[in-house]
Amino acid sequence: MRILGIDPGLNITGYGVIDASRDGVRLVEAGVVRGTKGKSLAHRVGEIHAGVAEVIASLSPEMVAIEELYSHYERVKTSILMGHARGVIVLAANQAGLPVTHYAATQIKRILTGAGRAPKAQMQLAIQRELGLATPPEPPDVADALAIAVTHWHLSGKRSAVSGQLS
Amino acid sequence: MRILGIDPGLNITGYGVIDASRDGVRLVEAGVVRGTKGKSLAHRVGEIHAGVAEVIASLSPEMVAIEELYSHYERVKTSILMGHARGVIVLAANQAGLPVTHYAATQIKRILTGAGRAPKAQMQLAIQRELGLATPPEPPDVADALAIAVTHWHLSGKRSAVSGQLS
Repeated sequence: MRILGIDPGLNITGYGVIDASRDGVRLVEAGVVRGTKGKSLAHRVGEIHAGVAEVIASLSPEMVAIEELYSHYERVKTSILMGHARGVIVLAANQAGLPVTHYAATQIKRILTGAGRAPKAQMQLAIQRELGLATPPEPPDVADALAIAVTHWHLSGKRSAVSGQLS
Repeated sequence: MRILGIDPGLNITGYGVIDASRDGVRLVEAGVVRGTKGKSLAHRVGEIHAGVAEVIASLSPEMVAIEELYSHYERVKTSILMGHARGVIVLAANQAGLPVTHYAATQIKRILTGAGRAPKAQMQLAIQRELGLATPPEPPDVADALAIAVTHWHLSGKRSAVSGQLS
């Protein structure tokens, strides 16, 4: 199965597409979609929506896994702004008819490293190992997006048990 | 000028379209767009986006005014969920090429009643009076949407002074 993992953000949204089979996972493509700094919120959500829709159209994933937000942010304003980005991303998935699964950051870290509070460097190493990459994925937004996709692969067999509150 | 005011929500999004001129304002159409309860978040943002896009296509407003969220919600989870709804609404406006202006709830209340903390009933009466309606607009989501549109009419002459932090 082909999985698109997304790490949502208003400035940088990371995406990572992997192909998963019984034999393991392999990287298809990963990168970032940028919202132009200094542009209006409406303009930036337009860029994010178009960018994610383009990734879906060109790489044809069968499902989307995305990080839950509210375990992350303590500031209400940041949470709302990130919610805008996340809203247009799940919209793009829905418009393409793809199922969306939500994972908490702690859940992703626990699956990949065994520790819910693993530091970024440890996460990047885990992703590098899982996907057999020559170097750790950069920037961190790409590593996070790939981590979500790999988490979905690990958990999708028992998916009903892991659907998040935001699903 | 024709103004679309929007009160965003994941369950009920109120909209109100008014025509404004030197002589005053008149109601064109107001109503609600519903996200189906119990459906996934992705499904609901799809419904909200499609509903608002349909309102824009059928009523041809020239600009959109929308309530800011973060002055309202103290719970982070609620804020994020509302941010999703708001994200797909400003996306629909952006895709139609319409400018979006953001107003804080206290600003809307102050413009319409003179008091930043006016109760709902007082707001509904103010809107009824401004638009010359036989009865107060119902449900409250519609009254709030019309309040935002009327606020935009009052303030649009000095728009650069009122652009919100979320713009």
